[in-house]
Amino acid sequence: MAKIQVAVLGATGMIGQRFVQLLEDHPWFEIGGLYASERSEGKGLREVMKVKDHAFKEDTLERKIEQLETKAIAKRCRVAFSGLPTDVAKDAETSLANAGVAVFSNAASHRMENDVPLLIPEVNPEHLDIVKRQRCYKDGGYIVTNANCSTTGLALPLKAIHTAYGLEFVCVSTYQAISGAGYPGVPSLDILGNVHPHIKSEEEKMEAEIFKMLGKKTAKGIDHPKFDMVASCARVPVIDGHMESVALRTSRDASADDIIRTLDKFKPAPQKLDLPTAPVRPIIVRMEADRPQPLFDVYAGEPLRARGMAVTVGRVRQSGNKYTKLWLLSHNTIRGGAGGSVLNAELAKAKRLL
Amino acid sequence: MAKIQVAVLGATGMIGQRFVQLLEDHPWFEIGGLYASERSEGKGLREVMKVKDHAFKEDTLERKIEQLETKAIAKRCRVAFSGLPTDVAKDAETSLANAGVAVFSNAASHRMENDVPLLIPEVNPEHLDIVKRQRCYKDGGYIVTNANCSTTGLALPLKAIHTAYGLEFVCVSTYQAISGAGYPGVPSLDILGNVHPHIKSEEEKMEAEIFKMLGKKTAKGIDHPKFDMVASCARVPVIDGHMESVALRTSRDASADDIIRTLDKFKPAPQKLDLPTAPVRPIIVRMEADRPQPLFDVYAGEPLRARGMAVTVGRVRQSGNKYTKLWLLSHNTIRGGAGGSVLNAELAKAKRLL
Amino acid sequence: MAKIQVAVLGATGMIGQRFVQLLEDHPWFEIGGLYASERSEGKGLREVMKVKDHAFKEDTLERKIEQLETKAIAKRCRVAFSGLPTDVAKDAETSLANAGVAVFSNAASHRMENDVPLLIPEVNPEHLDIVKRQRCYKDGGYIVTNANCSTTGLALPLKAIHTAYGLEFVCVSTYQAISGAGYPGVPSLDILGNVHPHIKSEEEKMEAEIFKMLGKKTAKGIDHPKFDMVASCARVPVIDGHMESVALRTSRDASADDIIRTLDKFKPAPQKLDLPTAPVRPIIVRMEADRPQPLFDVYAGEPLRARGMAVTVGRVRQSGNKYTKLWLLSHNTIRGGAGGSVLNAELAKAKRLL
Amino acid sequence: MAKIQVAVLGATGMIGQRFVQLLEDHPWFEIGGLYASERSEGKGLREVMKVKDHAFKEDTLERKIEQLETKAIAKRCRVAFSGLPTDVAKDAETSLANAGVAVFSNAASHRMENDVPLLIPEVNPEHLDIVKRQRCYKDGGYIVTNANCSTTGLALPLKAIHTAYGLEFVCVSTYQAISGAGYPGVPSLDILGNVHPHIKSEEEKMEAEIFKMLGKKTAKGIDHPKFDMVASCARVPVIDGHMESVALRTSRDASADDIIRTLDKFKPAPQKLDLPTAPVRPIIVRMEADRPQPLFDVYAGEPLRARGMAVTVGRVRQSGNKYTKLWLLSHNTIRGGAGGSVLNAELAKAKRLL
Repeated sequence: MAKIQVAVLGATGMIGQRFVQLLEDHPWFEIGGLYASERSEGKGLREVMKVKDHAFKEDTLERKIEQLETKAIAKRCRVAFSGLPTDVAKDAETSLANAGVAVFSNAASHRMENDVPLLIPEVNPEHLDIVKRQRCYKDGGYIVTNANCSTTGLALPLKAIHTAYGLEFVCVSTYQAISGAGYPGVPSLDILGNVHPHIKSEEEKMEAEIFKMLGKKTAKGIDHPKFDMVASCARVPVIDGHMESVALRTSRDASADDIIRTLDKFKPAPQKLDLPTAPVRPIIVRMEADRPQPLFDVYAGEPLRARGMAVTVGRVRQSGNKYTKLWLLSHNTIRGGAGGSVLNAELAKAKRLL
Repeated sequence: MAKIQVAVLGATGMIGQRFVQLLEDHPWFEIGGLYASERSEGKGLREVMKVKDHAFKEDTLERKIEQLETKAIAKRCRVAFSGLPTDVAKDAETSLANAGVAVFSNAASHRMENDVPLLIPEVNPEHLDIVKRQRCYKDGGYIVTNANCSTTGLALPLKAIHTAYGLEFVCVSTYQAISGAGYPGVPSLDILGNVHPHIKSEEEKMEAEIFKMLGKKTAKGIDHPKFDMVASCARVPVIDGHMESVALRTSRDASADDIIRTLDKFKPAPQKLDLPTAPVRPIIVRMEADRPQPLFDVYAGEPLRARGMAVTVGRVRQSGNKYTKLWLLSHNTIRGGAGGSVLNAELAKAKRLL
Repeated sequence: MAKIQVAVLGATGMIGQRFVQLLEDHPWFEIGGLYASERSEGKGLREVMKVKDHAFKEDTLERKIEQLETKAIAKRCRVAFSGLPTDVAKDAETSLANAGVAVFSNAASHRMENDVPLLIPEVNPEHLDIVKRQRCYKDGGYIVTNANCSTTGLALPLKAIHTAYGLEFVCVSTYQAISGAGYPGVPSLDILGNVHPHIKSEEEKMEAEIFKMLGKKTAKGIDHPKFDMVASCARVPVIDGHMESVALRTSRDASADDIIRTLDKFKPAPQKLDLPTAPVRPIIVRMEADRPQPLFDVYAGEPLRARGMAVTVGRVRQSGNKYTKLWLLSHNTIRGGAGGSVLNAELAKAKRLL
Repeated sequence: MAKIQVAVLGATGMIGQRFVQLLEDHPWFEIGGLYASERSEGKGLREVMKVKDHAFKEDTLERKIEQLETKAIAKRCRVAFSGLPTDVAKDAETSLANAGVAVFSNAASHRMENDVPLLIPEVNPEHLDIVKRQRCYKDGGYIVTNANCSTTGLALPLKAIHTAYGLEFVCVSTYQAISGAGYPGVPSLDILGNVHPHIKSEEEKMEAEIFKMLGKKTAKGIDHPKFDMVASCARVPVIDGHMESVALRTSRDASADDIIRTLDKFKPAPQKLDLPTAPVRPIIVRMEADRPQPLFDVYAGEPLRARGMAVTVGRVRQSGNKYTKLWLLSHNTIRGGAGGSVLNAELAKAKRLL
């Protein structure tokens, strides 16, 4: 069976290159082209390399960046993975969808639109169908977005807990990696030996996206669940891996052990469908006193293809008799970025939308 | 007027040396001796220097470490500032108090004892009197403790807010500096480019100490206030300065602006008494979008003598219509350590307990 | 006596703001205006603050940035301190000098010109006179440059050693701080937990500037000394303070002790003239096994006004019987930047060129 | 063919665990036991895990640490890989060799002994035979040591260059990773945002070991080559990977291109013998302006089994017309530690000494 040709948009950036990494040997998809702005046209991937911890193949490094142009992409590729900056993404993605391309985007531009699924296959796979409400869908084009990097890591355990016990209150403080701001991104003078307590729009995204994803698809839209959600976001001097400190209260009583068991046995759609980039265990619960940690756990996820796709949860513990506290970690540019969209595309293929 | 002779206990450690720094030119106190375990006896302070950001005087660096011995200290010093490790502190401090020495301690050993004030002059100056319940008090000896470093930074704004609006719920996640663990403390392999989500007993301390300090002194003990308090503590790669992300709910309605005004005008006892190490403004509220930050604000506090004694609060903002979020920063080994105890001793002197 | 009005050029940048810091309370100079590109016109200094470790006065923070315009500056200021980027500096500085302003520049643009002194008062104060060869000098205008940040730290000890023993060979490897690249400068993804072994043109500057500065002024130009000089430059995750590992060979025999004595007693012109920003001891030799270190020694220099102006040398030792090895550290944006030019202007004033 | 049973000594430490990592799936060797001091006896490897960037197998993590005891080890294992601390290593390794075990050690204790090969298979494979001079060799026991971590990275390119052009002078400054000091090793307060310019005995080791390894084996010992060697060593805030800045002068003329070609085509014994842990290209020369870098290149080496075994060289350039400058990087606990000894053992097996 021929592989599906895919475009990588924003291939000069951090997320774009994580897409390339995950697609280098993909069983279903094949990179049809690397695209970016005019400025980088003709450059080899090697010259614009931002990802430092993956050894790309020589062939991949030799690939040339092409200028992002709807027609050319639509002709060659059935799918586009978008790591474009938000401002560029909005129009470029719409244009591609209108040209019949299935766009799986990491950009925030379309996330909160009514007919665009904000999708995490482990959380709300049933939302994928919303694409059928997009006008361009009849011609094969549509847009699916993944969630914000810090929302993604949180959404998986919250989904499991909300389903089992109902959520009443969630308070989260993030410890986000510098790669989340892309490249050049965070100036070193702002973060070396420092904590930067402001990431533009991040708290707003977290406080909004989680409700869309945990909501119920209805005939007209999505019914958001009702609970309090308070998010506070900061950048710390970590390269990859967003840590989150979470305190929550459930509607029905749940001990720390109950929560651990619930997270441990969480086995949602992508795992059942055996999607290529789905980690065998989407949530890994660690019992050590000092885990997760970015240096230890950022690449969690098996098999090899799903490295960085598991969310690691640790230190699940009670605080008083009302609150449960836990720490979580997820790879912000894989699970919370390119990997999320690749998994979305795999779900689309499994659901025969590709 | 002759200065009061004071002993510095644990002078080879980080907190001990912050005591030395703050006492080098103190208007009321004079260093009578530097004490540590037998192992360091006879060494010059220069040889065991841990504090890197303060230029000690040559005279100070030449001082020799003596072995901690109750009688010798009691003979020479009216006051002892203790930066001893918890396990050593317990007996050593009791022994000194019994020998008639007023001990101002940074150690956790005696903090939760009924007749020992857990004191922050800006928060609960009236608790100081509790020392009179100590048996050794009749002979002039007593123990006063400062709070845990991360509790201290939190206690100041909470006190102001609790007094004005009543607290119902506080959720805090800390971003703590490595100096909080002393020296050698945190191995670099555990923290460089990492977040370490476990600090032994730290959350328990925060969840307990805050209630003792915000409590009302009664004839028999202290009446703890009632609100929910959830703390989660982590270490980040920052040298000095504990950042804290706080979400809270008050009993009476309070907008972000109300909270800001309340914090801004907070002028408690030590400021009214004009204690030498009290910062003119104990809480500095910043209105920039990205403050406080350790690199910018860790030394906050005026005049020069009170550098590192102010708590900086920033990003005070509403979340939904129930919660207020804010960030705070305080210098963990000055405000939250040696400086706290020096201020305690100054209060004791002002209250004629010295 | 009225203070001399001075302009700070490039006041939105790191070096420009170090100028402001050093000029806030200067006994001879007074800030007449802060200048930068059109883009920042009208902004308060507070809004564009890059320096994080100095508490500027409220008055200073309130000052507004004006657009750099030759006439307006020449009208108001006798002196301009330039922290402009190299490309802008070239013409702007020439234009100001032609308008009668004495320009003391940190930019590289004019450094290697024949009639421009590349000046370190401790190293080649007699070069200052070269300004008289500049055409604009007759109208009171001229340009004086300080050396590159990593060259400066090296030049002081080399001057002392060359004078005493003659240099045959110098091999230096640098460990340079991120602030050397200005702001935003080095992307955090390039330096956190990393070493970046390339700083554009830095090695070329070091290998060229040292010879101009150690050269003899002649009727026509400068006679460069003859020795081999090999420089290798890298960036490390340090905020401020360039460390340099130096190996050298002298013409005349010199033991490590000889070198130490020579450096220790180095007391050149600015110290004899008692210039306000000159450190009492321009070179501080440390005998500990593990000094200098940026965290300990970056602010070396007394009195308070000369903080960061001393070069710290340590670990002076022999290697075999031909080579001497040593480490040195200097504050790259003070000694090797703004402080260098302020000292140059002080020398000019002392020599009645202002 | 049955695999050779091997012991890992010092399995609670960083180097010990790198041995375990490299031996987990080794084609010739099989871990017979993990050994450490009495204190760790009975603990699972999981409980004492120091290596954070490798996902060990569950089986491996379950293995128990046993107490180091010569007889028990000799009974079970033909080979011992030693990651013991220097002070323990001396006697323990001698005792094992006397008991007939072939010891491949990373410890410094025996390195400079006359009858002990200081071995890097790419550099001096012919030195391996020296083991036959050890008294215990007749019973099958002997000791082979790898070189110091910073010497190893340097030795490979120096060998290639010395063979081709003759070395006259080498000046090296190191930028060493914190993992080189083991765990807990470097306190974070000493290295975060800092450079530490002293590593005990490191410069002495570099200045001595390189001559033994580049020397010619003679009937009686080893003839050291004659050239000047100056080493200066520092620690920087990097997790893994020692960078080195090298300046050198050759006897015969060699342009930068000559050197590059020489390094590029370097194909010594282990590559010809196709040893399992030998990287296809032992020296990788990079032509980019800013490589090597720890974050990019620390794991260099193919195939997968040889990750971290290649030395990356970059920025080969002339300085004046006498000196060549270059940067190099090698993984200090793999190439410069456990991996070096594993390769030594593979060479021993290929040479029928096992």
